[in-house]
Amino acid sequence: MPRPVTIAAAQMGPIRRDESRPHVVGRLLALLREAHARGGELVLFPECALTAFFGHWWIDDEAERDAWYESEMPSPVTQPLFDEAARLRIGFCLGYAELAVEAGAKRRFNSSVLVGRDGTIIGKYRKMHLPGHADHRPENPFQNLEKRYFQPGDLGFPVWDAFGGRVGMLICNDRRWPEAYRMLGLQGVEAVLIGYNTPRHYPEYPDTDRLADFHHLLSLQAGAYQNGTWVIAAAKAGIEEGVEQIGSSAIVAPSGEVIARSSTLGDELIIHRCDLDLCRTIKQGVFHPRNRRPEHYGLITARNDE
Amino acid sequence: MPRPVTIAAAQMGPIRRDESRPHVVGRLLALLREAHARGGELVLFPECALTAFFGHWWIDDEAERDAWYESEMPSPVTQPLFDEAARLRIGFCLGYAELAVEAGAKRRFNSSVLVGRDGTIIGKYRKMHLPGHADHRPENPFQNLEKRYFQPGDLGFPVWDAFGGRVGMLICNDRRWPEAYRMLGLQGVEAVLIGYNTPRHYPEYPDTDRLADFHHLLSLQAGAYQNGTWVIAAAKAGIEEGVEQIGSSAIVAPSGEVIARSSTLGDELIIHRCDLDLCRTIKQGVFHPRNRRPEHYGLITARNDE
Repeated sequence: MPRPVTIAAAQMGPIRRDESRPHVVGRLLALLREAHARGGELVLFPECALTAFFGHWWIDDEAERDAWYESEMPSPVTQPLFDEAARLRIGFCLGYAELAVEAGAKRRFNSSVLVGRDGTIIGKYRKMHLPGHADHRPENPFQNLEKRYFQPGDLGFPVWDAFGGRVGMLICNDRRWPEAYRMLGLQGVEAVLIGYNTPRHYPEYPDTDRLADFHHLLSLQAGAYQNGTWVIAAAKAGIEEGVEQIGSSAIVAPSGEVIARSSTLGDELIIHRCDLDLCRTIKQGVFHPRNRRPEHYGLITARNDE
Repeated sequence: MPRPVTIAAAQMGPIRRDESRPHVVGRLLALLREAHARGGELVLFPECALTAFFGHWWIDDEAERDAWYESEMPSPVTQPLFDEAARLRIGFCLGYAELAVEAGAKRRFNSSVLVGRDGTIIGKYRKMHLPGHADHRPENPFQNLEKRYFQPGDLGFPVWDAFGGRVGMLICNDRRWPEAYRMLGLQGVEAVLIGYNTPRHYPEYPDTDRLADFHHLLSLQAGAYQNGTWVIAAAKAGIEEGVEQIGSSAIVAPSGEVIARSSTLGDELIIHRCDLDLCRTIKQGVFHPRNRRPEHYGLITARNDE
């Protein structure tokens, strides 16, 4: 029995370093309204969607750095997005840099929230896999300072029953790790929402730059197929403050097939009526849990030996 | 510094049910010699390469069934393959149905051996992930009785230092599971050898029949990329006793790119000079172990909850 939910991936073009949050929220609102006009029930925005990706710059001063994070969600500046979503009865997933004060200490995460069709937050995810480095590498054309600017996520890999199915979130680099999809898959996920900012060039290993789009899509497709889930991915794309980022926002079926894909490097909506029931064939077919051998996977959860 | 090893995948066309093992060994010898003539140092043969894939038929009688297994390796009938390999100084990986007597009891596995350039066995692997069913399903056009004819492998996921690198083996359905590659990847594998017999049609979930080659290649490519390893896969292909099996034997680089692929459904050799040093870029780049979060992967090794 079909269980359709219409999901959009809202790709964004670059955000200027000096672009104000209200201006960015205006862009998000335009994409939200387009999604609604095209029948969307849920729209995915990119990772850290409210500002330029500041992890690409070294920022010495703590106060200056903290200005790139959100200390509340919603906040006065993001509230219009929540209000409009409630008015249009459309949910969304929004990535943002999170500054939390927990047990009296500042903590910083690369986070996303899942927001229901009534405009209230259903759940939060904090990025688990942080790429890049913590040190300043001035010899590089740009930095990749996620290890400096964020702590690794501490909320595990949650799923939520929402939008008529079971939904999970990953963020950017998470999507390359089969463990991340598997953690969601073992909890029966049917739609994985993934925002990302992915530079084409990696100063530390440029050999694979030419394959950036391929590796991105390969990871989505394998994660979808091997767990029998829809995978929806939204890029911040194009040349942002001198850093070229890939596009290739995509909607991938549980078969692993790319069903929709962006065709620009700018603000662009792709949308598909995803039948969540298609997950069942894969989950109950080749990847039935009875065929797993978890007692032989011990190394996967062993501590890193470095 | 390049570390090349020339590896061949020896795809086989169908084997007739009444084809004798010596005849099949003759076909393997021809492929072995071709590999040697083309500079091969290691040649991969398919899963259960010595006979037709008898898991596709219900066989009631135990003695009749046992005749499809090998009770020793090498045996008089397979010894010529070992002898010729030693003479030509070329290693091989051979899949076969193994009948072992252990602790006084018969045990049956879907196994493969890795044989060195001196013709001696380096190691053995027993297939971990058994697809299919144990019951007779006469309404189906053919059976998939691996769960009846084999026990799940009990040797873990070993790797061996051989052929100038680190080598592991998987068999057929194993290749669809990211856990299998990851177990080898965490041990530093640089070349994964995979023989398979893959029907195009699955009576239990025919919706994905049209995607059989795509799913096969997707699994190889993701496993290669996500672990920074060469993946070499050899099919038993073509219509064997009425069962259509896919070809698409392939050599996949650590980048996930398909470097060589068979173009027929018959006996066919594909070969590539694999630089094992290419593994390093991927292993030490995006998939550096420091970026893993094993403490959050607990469900992956938890017991199946069924």
